[in-house]
Amino acid sequence: MLSHENLDTFDSFRKLQSLKGIRTADGSLTAERVQECSVPAAAGLVYNYAAKEVNPRLLKILQELADEAQLIGKFEELYNGEVVNTGEKRKVLHHLTRGQLGKDVIYEGRNLRTFYTEQQKKMADFAEKVHSGKILSSTGKKFTTVVQIGIGGSDLGPRAMYLALEQWARKNNTLKMTARFISNVDPDDAAGVLSSVNADETLFILVSKSGTTQETLANELFVKAWLEKKGLDPSKQMTAVTSETSPLANNPGYLASFYIDDFIGGRYSSTSAVGGAALSLAFGPGVFADFLAGAHEADRSACVQDIKKNPALLDALIGIYERNVQGYPVTAILPYSQALSRFPAHLQQADMESNGKQVNLRGEPVNYATGPTLFGEPGTNGQHSFYQLLHQGTDTIPLQFIGFTENQSRDDVIVDGSSSQKKLCANLCAQIVAFALGKKDDDPNKNFPGGRPSSLIYGKQLIPRTLGALLAHYENKIMFQGFAWNLNSFDQEGVQLGKVLTKKVLGGEMDGALKAYADIFGI
Amino acid sequence: MLSHENLDTFDSFRKLQSLKGIRTADGSLTAERVQECSVPAAAGLVYNYAAKEVNPRLLKILQELADEAQLIGKFEELYNGEVVNTGEKRKVLHHLTRGQLGKDVIYEGRNLRTFYTEQQKKMADFAEKVHSGKILSSTGKKFTTVVQIGIGGSDLGPRAMYLALEQWARKNNTLKMTARFISNVDPDDAAGVLSSVNADETLFILVSKSGTTQETLANELFVKAWLEKKGLDPSKQMTAVTSETSPLANNPGYLASFYIDDFIGGRYSSTSAVGGAALSLAFGPGVFADFLAGAHEADRSACVQDIKKNPALLDALIGIYERNVQGYPVTAILPYSQALSRFPAHLQQADMESNGKQVNLRGEPVNYATGPTLFGEPGTNGQHSFYQLLHQGTDTIPLQFIGFTENQSRDDVIVDGSSSQKKLCANLCAQIVAFALGKKDDDPNKNFPGGRPSSLIYGKQLIPRTLGALLAHYENKIMFQGFAWNLNSFDQEGVQLGKVLTKKVLGGEMDGALKAYADIFGI
Repeated sequence: MLSHENLDTFDSFRKLQSLKGIRTADGSLTAERVQECSVPAAAGLVYNYAAKEVNPRLLKILQELADEAQLIGKFEELYNGEVVNTGEKRKVLHHLTRGQLGKDVIYEGRNLRTFYTEQQKKMADFAEKVHSGKILSSTGKKFTTVVQIGIGGSDLGPRAMYLALEQWARKNNTLKMTARFISNVDPDDAAGVLSSVNADETLFILVSKSGTTQETLANELFVKAWLEKKGLDPSKQMTAVTSETSPLANNPGYLASFYIDDFIGGRYSSTSAVGGAALSLAFGPGVFADFLAGAHEADRSACVQDIKKNPALLDALIGIYERNVQGYPVTAILPYSQALSRFPAHLQQADMESNGKQVNLRGEPVNYATGPTLFGEPGTNGQHSFYQLLHQGTDTIPLQFIGFTENQSRDDVIVDGSSSQKKLCANLCAQIVAFALGKKDDDPNKNFPGGRPSSLIYGKQLIPRTLGALLAHYENKIMFQGFAWNLNSFDQEGVQLGKVLTKKVLGGEMDGALKAYADIFGI
Repeated sequence: MLSHENLDTFDSFRKLQSLKGIRTADGSLTAERVQECSVPAAAGLVYNYAAKEVNPRLLKILQELADEAQLIGKFEELYNGEVVNTGEKRKVLHHLTRGQLGKDVIYEGRNLRTFYTEQQKKMADFAEKVHSGKILSSTGKKFTTVVQIGIGGSDLGPRAMYLALEQWARKNNTLKMTARFISNVDPDDAAGVLSSVNADETLFILVSKSGTTQETLANELFVKAWLEKKGLDPSKQMTAVTSETSPLANNPGYLASFYIDDFIGGRYSSTSAVGGAALSLAFGPGVFADFLAGAHEADRSACVQDIKKNPALLDALIGIYERNVQGYPVTAILPYSQALSRFPAHLQQADMESNGKQVNLRGEPVNYATGPTLFGEPGTNGQHSFYQLLHQGTDTIPLQFIGFTENQSRDDVIVDGSSSQKKLCANLCAQIVAFALGKKDDDPNKNFPGGRPSSLIYGKQLIPRTLGALLAHYENKIMFQGFAWNLNSFDQEGVQLGKVLTKKVLGGEMDGALKAYADIFGI
């Protein structure tokens, strides 16, 4: 394995620190700069960093940092199957669910690429049988709705991906089933979703890698009781996505089971069976395959050493500069696409759960800031909400814009000489420039300081391939940042303590403050 | 008017700064402390700050600060109708939409409380006619769905409030109509919503105070074209909420119009006709009246000088300590209630648009941090997402938990000896304690530092009255913080520059970088 050292041990990082406070996105944001600061990404996407505070000297040092920290080499180790999740002693193989980047990865005599593609094939066959009516509900009805039961990584990614393609699929006559999602242990979540579906036309997918997730098991029983109350047979309307060693595996209580393994982290599981079952059912296996192809293309572009040809790596390194040199604690994700309404929530998990850590791979505390807080809402909605603070607040928050030339539904309306889609894109362009350049005004209340850095990822239209590439871009960005910070981005020990204390409360073993809080809720 | 001075001019603020870094929520978080640090709030809610880093000395200084900054006096000025939105020269009267706190507020010869209650009556009458079938769609069908078209303040609050009560209303047989919301100028937003409703059973509410909001007018025409294509008469299926001076007022194109005025800011308009029309139609006027009553009760509790009896004020002041003394840049809102799924997004607007500012009431730059970044998702979902960073990240993020003993639908299931609702509350209790106390572990990767402060607002069940009180709590908290920071919390000049530049793009008047970005999108 390569040597894994802290960010602040690198010469290039010390050089980077000397560049604190450079300003490029203000006076020098010219048309030429917009054209130059452009990196082709996968599936026709382009990453543009013109409105970031980046100059050639900074780029040079970021390249040195990428090389010194061996970021590409570490990615190679990862996709070649080394045990890079050292705490849990696991490989990290979500890239392998969408293509082969390096060597065959063999585990316990099995080629894991083969395993993942077998599962995809199994899901495709199952979905086609459901769509063709070969598999029917327990009363013989055709399934029209799929409801995924899962939480965290088994919910946010698949939900965000479904919403991202729903209108596109409707327009392209490939919306085979509508999808809904139950996640929260709050029983009102399941009650709300169930109130909106027809029981005898609904197929459920239970998703839990371990098969022991408290929320998911509770919601499974909630749903089963509801089906039984309606005289339906849950075993004919419920499928499972789990690991082969879980209690849910090979279980006659499910109509079908699809498998993942320990090398697919929850927050990186959208391209595995965790996302594949719901997306294949909702949109058809071909759409899911296109989504995977886009992700694989982005993975390939992440293998390139030259940061000017590797958008995920460049994005990651600019983020390191913003976090560790400029000291910005927050990043906003601002997709100008209603289809991406829950994409920021998914990235919030992917990013904050991966890199919200304070010890390095050797378990030593690090002396620098790691993962930032990440949030976002789609534009133009956000413009009428929190953009006030982004423009005129006392903190600088780096921004990541996403936009597309064409909308998905192709429905549109011309008002005041422009379509809504054109208005959407015009707003996006206007915001980038407003944040970068600001505007002097004699009334200080109307003064915009500018110098608020942003990047832009754009493409022609959000289609399955584009979505896959977009998702993989961010997954790889997070991975590179984790490498740079010398973290294990693939465990989540920070979720354990809450689980332990919850068990104590439910087992009646609590005292002190914990008991006092439990008393409040009559537990 | 009272004198308005910067936070850093107060003696009490200088005293406050000497308390940087106090720790109380760790070793000293005892059962007694949980019981003591409890402030009754409106509508049966309780604000508990036991897990905040607050000790008696800090509380004493916060009281001094409240007094020295005349926070209660400033609230009195506001509700008595002084022009506290000085930039726009407007009164700020959202409190008056839900009750009379002080003097009659007369404007141009009109008692504004009377005006707001007249509008409520008008909405109630209209809603009852819709529910009883006296008002039918253009093909004579009963309206079953209401779709609100609005953005920002005309969307986030009403949407969050509707979602907060939907399951409760379903359970209590008072879900008269389902509600949907169109906001984004992205035409896929409207296309998606319209694909899920029956045209001849859907009533639309167009909401724009000025009657000139770009997104809302575009979506209005989108919807009208869709209705007309289906042979329906938009004027028989569309209502408006606007100001009396807007182009939408007294317009025969609408079945009915309900009015607000310039003294109701968008982000504070949930209790005005902006929220009232949709909520009265969805749940019936009685539910909306209960919601207002809860808000009014919370407003009354915000009038109290003693911070230990004024939960909104105390919450605000603890936030000032965290932001300006501890230096925390972010706050998370964590409701353990799926019904509050969009409540954090609404508060994100309310807070960040109100206090994301860097000049004081006199237009002078302030030398201290103002409004923080605010984000959140419901628990337990967030536990499986970004809580990793909250527990073990390198930044401390103050937390605001919300919880209820009972769920809304009353549907539940017992798994492993406990109901889902009990599991939900147990998780909430466990998290508060985990964040505060942490846990030492020899494996540094499994070590929890603790000392991560949180507060808790809790109640028996989320019902209309509780929701009103909860909303008003946060509105008043934000208001008090704005007073303390000496900001105008009621304008939003930071949204203007983007509008100006968007017009330039759409008008073809752009050059330089703006043109280069527009070229990317083929504008």
